[in-house]
Amino acid sequence: MFSKMATTVHTPFVLLLFQIGVFSLPVSQTPQESPTCGYKSCHAIKPGMLNVHLVPHTHDDVGWLKTVDQYFYGARNDIQHAGVQYILDSVVDQLLKNPDRRFIYVETAFFYRWWKRQSGDMQDTVKQLVDEGRLEFVNGGWCMSDEATTHYSAVVDQMTIGLRFLNDTFGPCGRPRVAWHIDPFGHAREHASVFAQMGYDGFFFGRLDYQDRSRRKASREQEMVWRASESLVPPVADLFTGILPNGYNPPEGFCWDQLCDDPPIRDDPDLEDYNVEDVVSKFLTVAQEQAKVYKTNHIIMTMGSDFQYENANLWYKNLDKLIRYVNQKQVNGSNIHVLYSTPSCYLQELSLSGSPYFPMRIDDFFPYADAAHDFWTGYFTSRPALKRYERISNSYLQICNQMEVLGGPTSRNGSFGVGNSDTMKKAMAVAQHHDAVSGTEKQHVADDYARRLANGWTQCQVLVSNTLAALSGSSRLPSDRFSVNVYNPLARPVGWSVRLPVNGTAYAVTDSSGNAVDCQVVPVSQATVVVRRDRGYAVNELLFQVRAPPMGYSTYSVSLLQKGPPPASPFPRAPKDIQNKFLKVTFDPETGLLSSLSNLETQQTVRLSQNFYWYNASDGNNKDSKQMSGAYIFRPNSSTTFIISKTAKIETVQNSVVQEVRQWFSPWVSQVVRLYADSRVLELEWTVGPVPIGDNMGKEVITRFDTSINSSGIFYTDSNGREVLQRRKDYRPTWTLTQTEPVAGNYYPINSRAYIKDEKDQLTVVTDRSQGGGSIQDGSLEIMLHRRLLHDDVRGVGEPLNEASDLYPEGLVVRGRLLLSLNPPAVAANTHRPLAQEVVLQPLITFTEGLLPPNTRPEFSGLQTALPPAVHLLTVSQWDPDLVLLRLEHQYEARDSKEHSQPVTVNLQKLFATLDVLGVSEMNLSANQWKHEMTRLDWKKPLPKTKGDPSVWEVTLKPMEIRTFLLRVRLR
Amino acid sequence: MFSKMATTVHTPFVLLLFQIGVFSLPVSQTPQESPTCGYKSCHAIKPGMLNVHLVPHTHDDVGWLKTVDQYFYGARNDIQHAGVQYILDSVVDQLLKNPDRRFIYVETAFFYRWWKRQSGDMQDTVKQLVDEGRLEFVNGGWCMSDEATTHYSAVVDQMTIGLRFLNDTFGPCGRPRVAWHIDPFGHAREHASVFAQMGYDGFFFGRLDYQDRSRRKASREQEMVWRASESLVPPVADLFTGILPNGYNPPEGFCWDQLCDDPPIRDDPDLEDYNVEDVVSKFLTVAQEQAKVYKTNHIIMTMGSDFQYENANLWYKNLDKLIRYVNQKQVNGSNIHVLYSTPSCYLQELSLSGSPYFPMRIDDFFPYADAAHDFWTGYFTSRPALKRYERISNSYLQICNQMEVLGGPTSRNGSFGVGNSDTMKKAMAVAQHHDAVSGTEKQHVADDYARRLANGWTQCQVLVSNTLAALSGSSRLPSDRFSVNVYNPLARPVGWSVRLPVNGTAYAVTDSSGNAVDCQVVPVSQATVVVRRDRGYAVNELLFQVRAPPMGYSTYSVSLLQKGPPPASPFPRAPKDIQNKFLKVTFDPETGLLSSLSNLETQQTVRLSQNFYWYNASDGNNKDSKQMSGAYIFRPNSSTTFIISKTAKIETVQNSVVQEVRQWFSPWVSQVVRLYADSRVLELEWTVGPVPIGDNMGKEVITRFDTSINSSGIFYTDSNGREVLQRRKDYRPTWTLTQTEPVAGNYYPINSRAYIKDEKDQLTVVTDRSQGGGSIQDGSLEIMLHRRLLHDDVRGVGEPLNEASDLYPEGLVVRGRLLLSLNPPAVAANTHRPLAQEVVLQPLITFTEGLLPPNTRPEFSGLQTALPPAVHLLTVSQWDPDLVLLRLEHQYEARDSKEHSQPVTVNLQKLFATLDVLGVSEMNLSANQWKHEMTRLDWKKPLPKTKGDPSVWEVTLKPMEIRTFLLRVRLR
Repeated sequence: MFSKMATTVHTPFVLLLFQIGVFSLPVSQTPQESPTCGYKSCHAIKPGMLNVHLVPHTHDDVGWLKTVDQYFYGARNDIQHAGVQYILDSVVDQLLKNPDRRFIYVETAFFYRWWKRQSGDMQDTVKQLVDEGRLEFVNGGWCMSDEATTHYSAVVDQMTIGLRFLNDTFGPCGRPRVAWHIDPFGHAREHASVFAQMGYDGFFFGRLDYQDRSRRKASREQEMVWRASESLVPPVADLFTGILPNGYNPPEGFCWDQLCDDPPIRDDPDLEDYNVEDVVSKFLTVAQEQAKVYKTNHIIMTMGSDFQYENANLWYKNLDKLIRYVNQKQVNGSNIHVLYSTPSCYLQELSLSGSPYFPMRIDDFFPYADAAHDFWTGYFTSRPALKRYERISNSYLQICNQMEVLGGPTSRNGSFGVGNSDTMKKAMAVAQHHDAVSGTEKQHVADDYARRLANGWTQCQVLVSNTLAALSGSSRLPSDRFSVNVYNPLARPVGWSVRLPVNGTAYAVTDSSGNAVDCQVVPVSQATVVVRRDRGYAVNELLFQVRAPPMGYSTYSVSLLQKGPPPASPFPRAPKDIQNKFLKVTFDPETGLLSSLSNLETQQTVRLSQNFYWYNASDGNNKDSKQMSGAYIFRPNSSTTFIISKTAKIETVQNSVVQEVRQWFSPWVSQVVRLYADSRVLELEWTVGPVPIGDNMGKEVITRFDTSINSSGIFYTDSNGREVLQRRKDYRPTWTLTQTEPVAGNYYPINSRAYIKDEKDQLTVVTDRSQGGGSIQDGSLEIMLHRRLLHDDVRGVGEPLNEASDLYPEGLVVRGRLLLSLNPPAVAANTHRPLAQEVVLQPLITFTEGLLPPNTRPEFSGLQTALPPAVHLLTVSQWDPDLVLLRLEHQYEARDSKEHSQPVTVNLQKLFATLDVLGVSEMNLSANQWKHEMTRLDWKKPLPKTKGDPSVWEVTLKPMEIRTFLLRVRLR
Repeated sequence: MFSKMATTVHTPFVLLLFQIGVFSLPVSQTPQESPTCGYKSCHAIKPGMLNVHLVPHTHDDVGWLKTVDQYFYGARNDIQHAGVQYILDSVVDQLLKNPDRRFIYVETAFFYRWWKRQSGDMQDTVKQLVDEGRLEFVNGGWCMSDEATTHYSAVVDQMTIGLRFLNDTFGPCGRPRVAWHIDPFGHAREHASVFAQMGYDGFFFGRLDYQDRSRRKASREQEMVWRASESLVPPVADLFTGILPNGYNPPEGFCWDQLCDDPPIRDDPDLEDYNVEDVVSKFLTVAQEQAKVYKTNHIIMTMGSDFQYENANLWYKNLDKLIRYVNQKQVNGSNIHVLYSTPSCYLQELSLSGSPYFPMRIDDFFPYADAAHDFWTGYFTSRPALKRYERISNSYLQICNQMEVLGGPTSRNGSFGVGNSDTMKKAMAVAQHHDAVSGTEKQHVADDYARRLANGWTQCQVLVSNTLAALSGSSRLPSDRFSVNVYNPLARPVGWSVRLPVNGTAYAVTDSSGNAVDCQVVPVSQATVVVRRDRGYAVNELLFQVRAPPMGYSTYSVSLLQKGPPPASPFPRAPKDIQNKFLKVTFDPETGLLSSLSNLETQQTVRLSQNFYWYNASDGNNKDSKQMSGAYIFRPNSSTTFIISKTAKIETVQNSVVQEVRQWFSPWVSQVVRLYADSRVLELEWTVGPVPIGDNMGKEVITRFDTSINSSGIFYTDSNGREVLQRRKDYRPTWTLTQTEPVAGNYYPINSRAYIKDEKDQLTVVTDRSQGGGSIQDGSLEIMLHRRLLHDDVRGVGEPLNEASDLYPEGLVVRGRLLLSLNPPAVAANTHRPLAQEVVLQPLITFTEGLLPPNTRPEFSGLQTALPPAVHLLTVSQWDPDLVLLRLEHQYEARDSKEHSQPVTVNLQKLFATLDVLGVSEMNLSANQWKHEMTRLDWKKPLPKTKGDPSVWEVTLKPMEIRTFLLRVRLR
């Protein structure tokens, strides 16, 4: 349906493309900017008065206690009463009853479901409401994404498909002016940066640390300008940010939804309990109190909450009365004016009120605590398997998108059948929701997210197969051989270690040029046996190194050798050390644990020990607080870490491809320490689970690195996989923290990497999914890997985070990788930036049975040449039959690297090997607006000049810059 | 507001009055019968198929867990989510979206509240919906009355004001065709009779004894014709009666209200859990199963329940889909056709299907049991104080109505200020609700009903005072005297014993002619001291007999004598007997209890002992069932009666006016046995309470009469104060009972009287309110007086019936009277019929300080002459400025009395003393339709000829007949 919608496109770029003369497209259904929507549609305010902006809204989780479709239809109301189809029905009806009324809608995943089932008449009616600003979209992404556990690339994608739907459907009046993250549990600076680059004028949220809020209320600093990047030139990443007064709820006593019990306004004097005077006087008091903690003579009230407005009449009927009766008091001297409004109308008034008022913020809003012992730092790790599945699905989606562009129409309907990328796009988009990848949904909903991703994989699998078949020309020739196609979605060539489960003992591998490749067969590690289900019944693994060209593939042929020797048995003890030409790792012979790490190129060594521990999750029986650990909240019963085992049982495998030290700590914790021949990275493949709970103790399992690095209470974590923020123990950069949870209060989200450093050494850990972590002791870095809890944490999900299923009745086993690198701080980014991208967008390995026929193309690159090292190919995605969405990103921060943190220029016409680029138009980050039309509200922050591009085709990227283009292309 | 509505009247009688030439009125806004409402607006059915009539409806209690106004506004949703204003808003919106949709509305108390706050546009829209039969009123009374504890006169009144509002507002399309008592807990034959006389074509209900239902399902006798009177000539009181299939709920799994959790129809194949096939197939099964227990190829399904349709979209959206998808199956051979319908459309199809199908019913539907130990016979007595207050308020309302007619405009705005009868009319109307006078509401709601009645009294007090002042011409002359005005609302002269609380010891009383009246002062009985609050601080009572003319008053003057002797102290023992010229009562000298009663005129004597007992209310700890006694359910823990005391402490007072034996059984039970000099009735004034619960035992307090009458397991109770039904122990007239509760299963509602009899003797007990009672042993009659319970009976009210308040923290004290008469059965009605009416419409006593001035009219009758003894003046009430509503009733049953059970003729022109009757028009019982236009659906029961009236002015009443007239009058 999505691509069908796109045929009725009325995106604005059509005009610009025409203007710049690069190419033209037929101008069909080009909308005129409506004269009455957006800022022009706001109700008049009363300048001398306190203006109270009432914002009717609903907060519709794209899955949480119920699945997204259950929420849409209102199924399983026994779990939670919520039906979004009815909300939209009802709101539209009620908006039509009184043109003064306003409503904002947020989640396009739901709006899209509703829209496509409406009649043409109803669609016209809704368009009219949108054109008149009576129904306004805010945020407008497919969902309201989580900020702690999402990767920016997936966030940009989900925003793009949501905003595109609105743009295609409503034109400029459908473009949200305001980002609206009222529910996420803490706020990432990278999200603010992304929103700014998408052209939002402001950002509102509801949750921040209770100490921070209290201070901001006292100092009237609940509204600010967030400078969300240390690299991007202001005001590119500056974003007005407002903290809503009551989370996202109405003031107490003024909730008139069917889900609330507050007294309605009873204004018939013939009936009992006439309460108009009472309600009005309470409201005036509430407004005056609220005005005391904000700076201007405008305040905002969110009149709605979770899944409210299913029967919008209740709200509007009472709001109409409230407005009438409160404003009637003005004739008696009341100084309060109340009006229907929207966040953008409120924002407009703030911007007119003189913005030097607003302070600036440069740090982020993590971690979030709503009370002294209630740190929402557990969900950084909750559901680690889902978090990994989401991350790897993102990788697959990017490949799928690229394949759709490279394959053209054949990709969607080719030799392997009919496939698409939309299923995965939407599955990934809902997975970004703040109760999805966050791990804070009910189990059955987590299952649903996974199922949706699996459906996406199924569709992409067909699409990818179609494209690879078309590109390579391969067809099947039965044989005892098979070929391995390694597709690399990055814009530079990458090497990769392939591990294939096999039952043979000896193989020959050749590369795409027919040259032999060193390969080894090793027995499957016993450390992996507990998760054998994942590996079928193979007893061995075939290992070899591959290399693939930029945005392209290379093909390797594998032949079973009939009479190879059995693989060498692993050596039952730890070696003193393992090393390749780049790294050396030593082990403590007593314990089998890591003892040091050396970078042989830079000749630096740190003491490095590592082990596995668990915190005992609080069960609420604690004198300080009854708070329990749960899906959201991490609260260890004490700061004590319980060690799994002081020593590890060891097996060692060493061959020409890899050196592995396999460590068993317990039946439920093991690890493989792995050093590939060619790698600058030490790989730690951990396996944790099923976490035992027979002792009735919930466990939060961590691994901890203790080093000789003099980290001085500081460590670093990335924000959504992009810029890195400094974290200091028991400290917040912009406010004075009273630390009440020495561990949980020092945890931060790690999306892709964390590091500790001193003058000399930086130890960087790149993760394969989002995890929580901290540096509780100097020189130490811990990462939470898995959580299994016995109690709900009373934040609504209503289930203990105790993952088990029919497949894993004994509890979930999770496996993952941590990639360690040791470098001098000044050059560390040169390693971890590309490394992290390689983990995020990992190669896709596909197999073809049999011998490759002679006419097969064994190697292919979609790019004319590799992009410069600083440039990341963030998005290549089919937009319309002739249009491709391209995002190029400078992947270094300004301070990252002397070598790479420099402007770099790319020629768009010389980009693709198989596509002619006929035209180009630059868009905002979310591709729903011309870049040159992005005129954001002015918050009076310095606005320096920036240098332009060398030409239309040659675009320059500065550190951390992402540039978004629509390219008109033709497949060669 | 109500009288204001009446000025825009468009009642149909205007035309008839014109036609018969008696008088004419301007024809304003006379409606044309809409061609599309009523039976003409029904959707087509499919004759060869099983037609499933879906009836969207809401059941809106006029008070229960919340007060009527809380329900209307949706206040106190913490108690129960329910807001009728929103229901009507939403239903109207949704009806407009699809002309196929239908809705029925029932309770005019709510509809009226809503209507008067709608704009003219909305009112026009709703009129259109009503004119097209899309919104149809059923039942249409102010409330859905209780059937066990209401008096017919109050029921007729509440139906009249509800139906009048609909008639005034909507004309003929607003006239309900169907009575709809889906919730009352058992069904009174008198209600069916009244409904038939109001012109209803059919009657539907939901609750009947589970054994009866089970039998009727098996024999397909769930639909029948109820012959609801043994006196009225068929088919006057014949009424089609249908038992609904699921109470009033939808079939299981098909409840789509916001209050339900059933799965919505998910018909988007792109979303998860598509369930159209599943829902359709379940529905077809349900329909086929239901068709098996009904006779025709039409079945009805009630698609709604308590306070549903607040968000009607949920229901209709899914019902639209259900109808579409179920009927789509017809192309594949399905034989089921589903349609939006109403009870009248369903009824029409039944009537067309050939009514000889339907069996006849002549008994009633009491008691109601929904399981073996769950007899809903407790509410017959629950809240005895409220039940009495309701009854006496009815008396006062009738007087108030009469006074409004007699006083003309002065009554509403006179020397005592502005008063009205509307407040009391509406208060009484809501008090008839099946969770009002029934005593099954929450305490705070009971308080609200009482408060409403008190407001009614306040208004009527002004009105009555205005009229009495106008009629008598009295004004105040200060003095140590006062005058007592005794107003008699009956159409014949009555005598009455006045008891006035005084502190003096001697008084002189003179009647309206100035003749001395025998009077006595007695000390206040200690039996009454516990309720002293009611009596102020008076220590004595002044007693004298009064007499008042028909529908008129007589005035008595009272003077304090300065030097009277102190009243004689009561004698501390029981006399052997007390007697007057009519009755003799003996006492057992050992116990102080009654021992016999003799009628001295008829020379008959029965042994009669009486005492007080309690049943131990079940607390649910019982092997047979966990059912507890509660507001609804009477379930004694065993059949054992616990005696309060075997002997009574006695005081005797005997003087020329009264003889009283005062009996104390315990600190919380006492009684006065009282025989007035002139009376044929023995008065037993009982006082019960506070019922002790310190022993943690709930108590159901009864008084029991044990006599020598050979009653053979049979006793008699009235139905809503009119016809009397025979009750037989452990037996139901039309079905075979398996008795599972020997006491509770033999309890019946007593609204005004009960009796036991044998060939010779009939002992009749007239009650002053509705009570439950039974005859568990031969010759015995017991009446439950008070209940105090410690548990809720799990029928929804959610409170134990444990009446206590700030005024009565120790628990409620209740006082009442039982009036005993002993007669030969053949003439007993000659006593109990007028006696019961005297209790129902008791004289009103008012006081004027000082001497009556000479020009005062000391006596007055509104009637030219007393009506014949068989004729009861049921209603005299101002209808419009020039119109009076008159109801005349033959108050004897056909079998009651050789003397009185005869047709009797009344001349309407010669009726009133102070009003000229200029015109007359006969109406149906509820006064919303011309009598001659009452053409009810034909159920093919015999329809004998009846003799007409002698003339337009002379109307003949046959036994139990009520005739309703609108009179055009002029105050002389």
